[in-house]
Amino acid sequence: MTTTTSAIAAAAPGGPLAPTTIERRDLRPDDVLIDIAYAGICHSDLHQVHQDWGTAIFPMVPGHEIAGVVAAVGSDVTKYQVGDRVGVGCMVDSCGECEYCRAGSEQFCVKGNVQTYNGVGFDGENTYGGYSQQIVVKDAFVCRIPEGISLDVAAPLLCAGITTYSPLRRWGAGPGKKVAVVGLGGLGHMAVKLAVAMGAEVTVLSQSLKKQEDGLRLGAKDYYATSDESTFETLAGRFDVILNTVSAKLPVDAYLSLLRVGGAMVNVGAPGEPLEYNVFSLLGGNRVLAGSMIGGIAETQEMLDFCAEHGVGAEIETISADQVNEAYARVENSDVRYRFVIDTSTIG
Amino acid sequence: MTTTTSAIAAAAPGGPLAPTTIERRDLRPDDVLIDIAYAGICHSDLHQVHQDWGTAIFPMVPGHEIAGVVAAVGSDVTKYQVGDRVGVGCMVDSCGECEYCRAGSEQFCVKGNVQTYNGVGFDGENTYGGYSQQIVVKDAFVCRIPEGISLDVAAPLLCAGITTYSPLRRWGAGPGKKVAVVGLGGLGHMAVKLAVAMGAEVTVLSQSLKKQEDGLRLGAKDYYATSDESTFETLAGRFDVILNTVSAKLPVDAYLSLLRVGGAMVNVGAPGEPLEYNVFSLLGGNRVLAGSMIGGIAETQEMLDFCAEHGVGAEIETISADQVNEAYARVENSDVRYRFVIDTSTIG
Repeated sequence: MTTTTSAIAAAAPGGPLAPTTIERRDLRPDDVLIDIAYAGICHSDLHQVHQDWGTAIFPMVPGHEIAGVVAAVGSDVTKYQVGDRVGVGCMVDSCGECEYCRAGSEQFCVKGNVQTYNGVGFDGENTYGGYSQQIVVKDAFVCRIPEGISLDVAAPLLCAGITTYSPLRRWGAGPGKKVAVVGLGGLGHMAVKLAVAMGAEVTVLSQSLKKQEDGLRLGAKDYYATSDESTFETLAGRFDVILNTVSAKLPVDAYLSLLRVGGAMVNVGAPGEPLEYNVFSLLGGNRVLAGSMIGGIAETQEMLDFCAEHGVGAEIETISADQVNEAYARVENSDVRYRFVIDTSTIG
Repeated sequence: MTTTTSAIAAAAPGGPLAPTTIERRDLRPDDVLIDIAYAGICHSDLHQVHQDWGTAIFPMVPGHEIAGVVAAVGSDVTKYQVGDRVGVGCMVDSCGECEYCRAGSEQFCVKGNVQTYNGVGFDGENTYGGYSQQIVVKDAFVCRIPEGISLDVAAPLLCAGITTYSPLRRWGAGPGKKVAVVGLGGLGHMAVKLAVAMGAEVTVLSQSLKKQEDGLRLGAKDYYATSDESTFETLAGRFDVILNTVSAKLPVDAYLSLLRVGGAMVNVGAPGEPLEYNVFSLLGGNRVLAGSMIGGIAETQEMLDFCAEHGVGAEIETISADQVNEAYARVENSDVRYRFVIDTSTIG
């Protein structure tokens, strides 16, 4: 027994995306059925559709920035009830038993977490994501969206939000700390808003000054163009944390030189080619180069609560289902301020 | 007015080293005159003599692993008195006023710390190091060598000890943690002893199994050859901390794959050429690549106290002044277990 729901899918690698219907499983005792209201378009959706990260499963229903309302719950679910506002991010299951799952780092489950789409569940069934009107998810992978954040601006928090929140927290963004955010896109604009809300002094480092006005409006104190070489002299040794949200091959040593003693440059974007660095850039100043991949479920809930408390949501452009292919083309050209969100009521 | 003292100096770049005499300044109010008993030979001494790190000052008296006894103190010195056992490491002065000096990270003084040798003091005078019978050092840059460590095995702690102690502490080596030490040389053997004393489970990663017996004797639980490719499969995802003490161009991604989630690979050796890494190696597992350069003065004292408490000293070969050039050749060939220490009574 399954439920049929409308969705937007890529039938084959490269797309295009088109309306279709898919089946959602009947509720297991620990499942939640969600009426999806909005689904964000993450750049990684494009990478998956284009198989940039390896062979993928088609048809593909992308979407791991999901916000909606609980429509039904399984017999054992106590945490949620019908009508609750909820979100789902990049994962819908993990083993729950390994040391990383037990520590709340389900994204690093030793058996591999089950991705929200383009994944295969422990039941052997393919997963389909949030570009859809309904989804069934195990309760432990559903987060609560607090009152005070509307569902449209909440959707992108489930990936872009947690991806930037987690490293900012780990590396100590807060009062008295200077944080640089490299790139002002979907991830970057969330990083600016979150770091500002955490009390840090935030600087945007972008290729050009094109989005300077936006950056300052979002709370950044400074905005510099990295195409201007004097930027690297001006800002030498300034930052406690540099959060790099771009996937380009950056001159790592130049960026490391902007860190204070003990400072950390954290990458959340992933360029396809290897990067080069000089060990002296790390030795001089006890500096750190790190990576960060989304966040666990408990931390995602913490992030949502933090955003509600501080009035932080994504900056979005809401689109209807028939605009998805156009939106993909615009994401490819970095022509979005700052996240497309699909109004899923327009699907089907 | 100055004091003449016997020393071993390189008259010109490349050496050889030969006996000579140098002048030490008369005591300022905050100075300590030290009768040096032992001076360790650090690989960086060779780099400096050979100008591997840029133009250097000659004649050069190397040596920044100094252990001895206080022979006289300036009028304002209250911390030390004649007869105290003391040590001096890589620095003999810093501005004392910048935020890093105030935070106890004098090695990162914004005006630049004054190196123990091949440096220029704030008075404009060249500095000469520990291959000498006496040295005059500002009290704030003198550490106490506790009873319970003999001076010969204490000398190398002032560089090799603090260089490995500081990152092990920062990155959490201790009970329940698995630490890998890459390379079993002067730095590596100290790293093993210190990490074991901190309560960590230690594994040595060395090119071959040549020094396996030593590694296990020093307290390592495991010893693997990195020339054996299966090592990287066997140890995948095992370590909380990898302390890399070698200066060779390592395959960074392969080493990062040995880290647990959130683990850190810390470099204290510095290869001359850039290294390559793939950002995915950091993203997958929230991993960290870091550098560490010696340690501050307070932390150096903490390390000496720790070593006394845990009976940790360097493994040394004591040599006389006339063996220094031979010792340099052997250091160049990694043919020392594990640190040469010059008995300075044999100078002059």
